[in-house]
Amino acid sequence: MELNEYFPMWDKLTAPQQTRLLAASQKRHFDRGQIVHNGLTDCTGLFLLQSGQLRAYTISEEGREITMYRLFERDICLFSASCILRSIQFDIVIEAEKATEAWMVPADTYKKVMEESAPLANYTNEIMASRFSDVMWLLDQIMWKSLDRRLAHFLLEESALENTTTLKLTHELIGNHLGTAREVVTRMLRYFQSEGMVKLSRGTVELTDLDRLEKLESK
Amino acid sequence: MELNEYFPMWDKLTAPQQTRLLAASQKRHFDRGQIVHNGLTDCTGLFLLQSGQLRAYTISEEGREITMYRLFERDICLFSASCILRSIQFDIVIEAEKATEAWMVPADTYKKVMEESAPLANYTNEIMASRFSDVMWLLDQIMWKSLDRRLAHFLLEESALENTTTLKLTHELIGNHLGTAREVVTRMLRYFQSEGMVKLSRGTVELTDLDRLEKLESK
Repeated sequence: MELNEYFPMWDKLTAPQQTRLLAASQKRHFDRGQIVHNGLTDCTGLFLLQSGQLRAYTISEEGREITMYRLFERDICLFSASCILRSIQFDIVIEAEKATEAWMVPADTYKKVMEESAPLANYTNEIMASRFSDVMWLLDQIMWKSLDRRLAHFLLEESALENTTTLKLTHELIGNHLGTAREVVTRMLRYFQSEGMVKLSRGTVELTDLDRLEKLESK
Repeated sequence: MELNEYFPMWDKLTAPQQTRLLAASQKRHFDRGQIVHNGLTDCTGLFLLQSGQLRAYTISEEGREITMYRLFERDICLFSASCILRSIQFDIVIEAEKATEAWMVPADTYKKVMEESAPLANYTNEIMASRFSDVMWLLDQIMWKSLDRRLAHFLLEESALENTTTLKLTHELIGNHLGTAREVVTRMLRYFQSEGMVKLSRGTVELTDLDRLEKLESK
């Protein structure tokens, strides 16, 4: 197992610490659309992504969603082990956006090693600081960027991730990423279409003018 | 000096670690309105609040503000030492909202002890997780709560902090807390006034119906 590839400070763990983490870790597979983690009461462990894509999001009381961040190959999913930190007082849901292979390090094993290892505790700090930065970026976007810029950014990001300009996305799904009602997304997409930036058909959004979308994104 | 009162794991530090932290720490005073920390390039150290009140906020490119969280007596201000964590990639500003007395633990000393002490690294993790939870609460408010609820919450919080129902607050200042334009705040306050919940005069907002404000807040 290649846990050392996920933890740059692996060599600073003692041999018994390394052995405990290795012995406890298990291989996991998630199908596309499967829920990996569901709120504060759920605390399986950390997931180390070998391949695939995870999406972390929050849900309002009324069931509306907004994407906080995504995780890719070689990323560590920390909040699926939120019980290792008492002060984490928020619910997030993590779902597999693509079929995902991961190593799972159980929360209790990880917590015990982290409590005695300064290098692992400091590295955990860095992972959390990185997610904190993602959420601060999102807050900045929501507060100060208009929806047209956020939608342009989202479409370009999807296009890069899927490596295609023809995106299979419903307006409702886009709304769930951006925390916006479907109707609002539809209206904005129609405006984009009238400006020649996209072409809409049932269940797909084709990006027809990447240059203008990029200009809009960085406006 | 009473650093142990801020760090519940103080006894788990070695004697030399305790001595280094104590020897490096300095007393600091901030006047009301003084800037304690200004963005990523600024990295003085951690502030341990003996008395007073700090406000952490972000600013848009256009100069608009939104309050992320506040810190009070016995709280630890971590992000004024943001350089101790490489992965913190966001700018925040911290200002003294009231005259504030604090111990300052220099960032480099703290970082060195944290790198070798698992208890201090884990406690730092808890502080960050707590601020992360504050920001997630804010994100939830912004995304899903209407401005009338957020304004009612803010007025009630101010009233509790200042221990008075007659608040000295300009509409611009309220806008800076809520991340909203002054005109929008004025309009909402006038609606509150027409409903008998507040009474407005130059530079003050008097809360005249706490019950209804509380009902609105928890609507």
